[in-house]
Amino acid sequence: MANLAAVMPALGAIEVQEVPLPDPLPGQAVVRVEAVGICGSDTAYYRVGYIGDWKVDGPIILGHEASGTVVATGDGVTNVSVGDRVAIEPGTPCRNCEECLAGRYHLCPDFIFLATPPYDGALVQNLAIDARNLFAIPDSMSFEAAALCEPLSVGLWACRRAGLLPGDRVRVTGAGPVGILAAQVARAEGAADVVVSDISDFRLGVAAKLGFRTEKAGEVPEGPGHEDADVLLECSGAPGALAQGLWRLRNAGRAAMVGLPKQDVTLALSRLNVKEISISLVNRYAHTWPTAIAFVSSGRVDVESLVTHRFELADTESALTLAADVPDSLKAVVYPNGIPTR
Amino acid sequence: MANLAAVMPALGAIEVQEVPLPDPLPGQAVVRVEAVGICGSDTAYYRVGYIGDWKVDGPIILGHEASGTVVATGDGVTNVSVGDRVAIEPGTPCRNCEECLAGRYHLCPDFIFLATPPYDGALVQNLAIDARNLFAIPDSMSFEAAALCEPLSVGLWACRRAGLLPGDRVRVTGAGPVGILAAQVARAEGAADVVVSDISDFRLGVAAKLGFRTEKAGEVPEGPGHEDADVLLECSGAPGALAQGLWRLRNAGRAAMVGLPKQDVTLALSRLNVKEISISLVNRYAHTWPTAIAFVSSGRVDVESLVTHRFELADTESALTLAADVPDSLKAVVYPNGIPTR
Amino acid sequence: MANLAAVMPALGAIEVQEVPLPDPLPGQAVVRVEAVGICGSDTAYYRVGYIGDWKVDGPIILGHEASGTVVATGDGVTNVSVGDRVAIEPGTPCRNCEECLAGRYHLCPDFIFLATPPYDGALVQNLAIDARNLFAIPDSMSFEAAALCEPLSVGLWACRRAGLLPGDRVRVTGAGPVGILAAQVARAEGAADVVVSDISDFRLGVAAKLGFRTEKAGEVPEGPGHEDADVLLECSGAPGALAQGLWRLRNAGRAAMVGLPKQDVTLALSRLNVKEISISLVNRYAHTWPTAIAFVSSGRVDVESLVTHRFELADTESALTLAADVPDSLKAVVYPNGIPTR
Amino acid sequence: MANLAAVMPALGAIEVQEVPLPDPLPGQAVVRVEAVGICGSDTAYYRVGYIGDWKVDGPIILGHEASGTVVATGDGVTNVSVGDRVAIEPGTPCRNCEECLAGRYHLCPDFIFLATPPYDGALVQNLAIDARNLFAIPDSMSFEAAALCEPLSVGLWACRRAGLLPGDRVRVTGAGPVGILAAQVARAEGAADVVVSDISDFRLGVAAKLGFRTEKAGEVPEGPGHEDADVLLECSGAPGALAQGLWRLRNAGRAAMVGLPKQDVTLALSRLNVKEISISLVNRYAHTWPTAIAFVSSGRVDVESLVTHRFELADTESALTLAADVPDSLKAVVYPNGIPTR
Repeated sequence: MANLAAVMPALGAIEVQEVPLPDPLPGQAVVRVEAVGICGSDTAYYRVGYIGDWKVDGPIILGHEASGTVVATGDGVTNVSVGDRVAIEPGTPCRNCEECLAGRYHLCPDFIFLATPPYDGALVQNLAIDARNLFAIPDSMSFEAAALCEPLSVGLWACRRAGLLPGDRVRVTGAGPVGILAAQVARAEGAADVVVSDISDFRLGVAAKLGFRTEKAGEVPEGPGHEDADVLLECSGAPGALAQGLWRLRNAGRAAMVGLPKQDVTLALSRLNVKEISISLVNRYAHTWPTAIAFVSSGRVDVESLVTHRFELADTESALTLAADVPDSLKAVVYPNGIPTR
Repeated sequence: MANLAAVMPALGAIEVQEVPLPDPLPGQAVVRVEAVGICGSDTAYYRVGYIGDWKVDGPIILGHEASGTVVATGDGVTNVSVGDRVAIEPGTPCRNCEECLAGRYHLCPDFIFLATPPYDGALVQNLAIDARNLFAIPDSMSFEAAALCEPLSVGLWACRRAGLLPGDRVRVTGAGPVGILAAQVARAEGAADVVVSDISDFRLGVAAKLGFRTEKAGEVPEGPGHEDADVLLECSGAPGALAQGLWRLRNAGRAAMVGLPKQDVTLALSRLNVKEISISLVNRYAHTWPTAIAFVSSGRVDVESLVTHRFELADTESALTLAADVPDSLKAVVYPNGIPTR
Repeated sequence: MANLAAVMPALGAIEVQEVPLPDPLPGQAVVRVEAVGICGSDTAYYRVGYIGDWKVDGPIILGHEASGTVVATGDGVTNVSVGDRVAIEPGTPCRNCEECLAGRYHLCPDFIFLATPPYDGALVQNLAIDARNLFAIPDSMSFEAAALCEPLSVGLWACRRAGLLPGDRVRVTGAGPVGILAAQVARAEGAADVVVSDISDFRLGVAAKLGFRTEKAGEVPEGPGHEDADVLLECSGAPGALAQGLWRLRNAGRAAMVGLPKQDVTLALSRLNVKEISISLVNRYAHTWPTAIAFVSSGRVDVESLVTHRFELADTESALTLAADVPDSLKAVVYPNGIPTR
Repeated sequence: MANLAAVMPALGAIEVQEVPLPDPLPGQAVVRVEAVGICGSDTAYYRVGYIGDWKVDGPIILGHEASGTVVATGDGVTNVSVGDRVAIEPGTPCRNCEECLAGRYHLCPDFIFLATPPYDGALVQNLAIDARNLFAIPDSMSFEAAALCEPLSVGLWACRRAGLLPGDRVRVTGAGPVGILAAQVARAEGAADVVVSDISDFRLGVAAKLGFRTEKAGEVPEGPGHEDADVLLECSGAPGALAQGLWRLRNAGRAAMVGLPKQDVTLALSRLNVKEISISLVNRYAHTWPTAIAFVSSGRVDVESLVTHRFELADTESALTLAADVPDSLKAVVYPNGIPTR
């Protein structure tokens, strides 16, 4: 049986190649990968070959937002069985270091993360992974929705890092997939009000359809006098977005910086200090899959509305260039084993 | 202009009497009271004349779950205007003591609370109250829903006291109005799962219609081996309910005791300690009205489904005896200025 | 080379026996045990053979408050070296379960704990244990002090579970070793005031020498009107101690129950609820050794003042019966390799 | 009876003038001011006439770190009596706004703060102030120590805002009075280790005498690889100090920015995000005086070692220029009613 993967042999190229069909090691399961969401980080590795200190060095398989069906389990696996439909958490911690023992496994220095060099990702028909990274999903939940539990986890963790409390008024800057999911999480966790801002009318339209107030980014002047939010979830990574967003925070406001600008960030902290705001940095997520599945399966978060384009494995390259090729796009999903008939 | 009130002149009696039409003191507003929910505490004062250390001594007007329309404002009132439709927070803190300054105004030793002796309540056509206790509601929100922001606040505070976190599995014991509202709050704040238990099939039916899993109370044996919840919201006040509910908590579980049993509580703490659970007592609420209004007006909490019976002011006594008279009842609302045509 | 242990072959008996000299497994170290504090739980196993659901079944070596010198290390050990003087954390978690991953390794269902049946303890000359349970101590710190980092950890965790905040007024009920250590931790973590109560004048004397205000237990009547503490650390396990202590808590007070009474606990929760207090149960500790060592080595906590009696391994039985034999005793320490000359 | 004050009639000038002897309004007390610490903000108003948006406009009396003896009380004052020796909290909140009710009275938009324009300060012989700002001190505590409860409060709040936990390793940048007091607070609240850095050998010497590890500022290169702290308390206000300090934080580290640089702050947040650090801004303090008094009176914090120079009221100008005139100085205290004989 063949096992096809979308391999990136060199910068800016993707080839579908046959790779070995994996056998599960003890503790692992093999998943027939059904859906893989494409993330901006996949596109960054494809275009420029690095994100921060992570550099692609040799061929790599991209993709880390994934779901599928368990087709084999190794010795000692008890949490999933062959046939289970599962969402995949892409990071595997060592479970032995101080960070893991402290409950912060996502900061484990030996974290193995799908599609973060030098590790291959999920754009493959069959994937072996630690079975503890697999979470069974209900029948009612699509593979696509299960795959998008990954960016949803980013939204969940953003709210956690921001210290979101029920009743908070929330501002989300950036209406990309992560921003819209963070907004939905804020609402599902009891935010009194959520406003989403972006420069793209298309993206604001998606946010509006999901029931959010929207605001065109950049139309509010910087400086004091515009405080209307308790929590800022900065999800755009645009230069200046965090600096501007902090002015919108009220006293005791809390910001989580999810988007990563390419340059250093300049903030008017000596003027903002009178408000006693707090800024929390965000690095992925931890402990989020059960909640993500609960939010999606109960209808409290709609992840499928984000998917604007679907691709066969052979068209992975189009998925990776979608954002640049099609301005009015939001989220691409690749189906390594074929797009299902709906 | 007359100002009629449902006065309780003596234990177990209610008479509609004319009382003086209030003028607003500085900082006060006068509210034309439109809807008043009847609470178990109203019934307790009517039947036995006391709750704990609060004893009725002389005639009293009951009712503390209220809403209405502002008809007059005193000097210095800026947060509401004549004509505003408002939900009424029934407790007025001194704002000068240590508790108030610490943000715990609900524990203020000089708290003035509607219908807690010796203070009169809201079963009156026109009520003068500190304007800061008034919160404007949107046009889309009914007076009935606004009145029920009070028991909803109990649910909000129960979740806060329990330290509810998104993703928690929640058990609510007691499917009375407070229990069902607490369950709805838990869901609106991101609980992964909520189960409601009660001995009444009628009440479980209401909970089920609102989308909750239900469980007949008392059908699970006491003792270890049945842990399935992260949070327990004990809202029944039944003897043994807290003791039994604690056995259902998982490691690091948290319980909030909302229901008040008439007797002391016996708990197997020396056996429960291996789970490191926490128990938090609850006394009303603080800072909840804006969130309550946001939850109701956005449709995340349905308070009106709890109302099974509506009464004119003249029928207040029937409202107070409803729970005893009609087993399949849940919440009575009195309309001091007349039940509106729907 | 012989390896002597104080074995409990049957209830109420101790024999010094030769046991195999352990070789370190991969990840383990062998420690030459220098000091072992005797805990009330050791005495309970010796006298009655069980604590709650843990039952002695067959010969066992007691002792879990231990320190010593590393004499051998297994493959892969990097955190300690031969010759290191170490404090020993007695519990070894699986590091693979949900509790471990959540940072709550002390609630691991597969926790291996020294001297908790069926596992042997530290009253032995040479002990093999997971090297990650070992924490190097400074030269200035005695082995005795290092052993007592274990009961000190109980005090640290009690304060954590109680949510102790700097400035809190703290009441400690029970002036045994754990109570006095909890009091010292509270002070070292910024309590504004700490009062210790007990029925024993001897123990109150020890507390007073360490600088604490003391109060004879039982001399304050139960009921409202005596609130003077923000935090209660119940360390006596006496029947009624928790119930009485809760009356001493102020609004928003927090209690941690460290002492385990033999019977169920009856509490006036329906009268205490007006204060909105919280009660947290305590099961050992987690992540405490580095802080314990820092507090002891900097002089902020004095553990050695608790030691009233020291014993050779051959006199272990006298150590176990000390509390019953000598009323004015507090903490016994056994030296498996001989009491050092001071 | 005369009431002399050190008035600043114009920028860079101080004149001792007679001002009216105040009568206490209801709720106020009059304090004979015994000691006033001089703060960098006093010097800033004296030299340049503004701090951020607060601008001196007309004559002003400076000084907000104060203590004294109650000499008169107005109607309704119950917390202090004539003759009480008191520490003075300089900020008076309105107690009526949303911030005050939320427990954040220090963010009250109508906060009246001694020596913050347009309000006069404490460099006067007799001062009328809200009696609730007064905290009785024990006989053993000097007026000087009582006055310095104000900068100590800044240190207390810095630790609170940083989320300091017992066992944290703490880095304090800036060994001025606030930095050294923050370091002492961190130690008194259970920090495992505290290191203080500065460019001044004199100031590092003071820190070392108080038992802290010290480090010459700027001698550690910027960038990853030097993480050794859980908490950063930035108390220097030096350009780049926060940016550099953040590199020293470990995973999940927390920073509080106390020092206010004159310019915007540029931070490498997109590189620091992998550590998931948090940055909290600080604006004065709240609820700190009782704890400050407890820490000083118990000897856990030594405030008097910071005082290098003492002045009569007539020499206030020398106190204000001390930092510039005498490099090896730390804290000046003015005695409006005369320096006491020791």
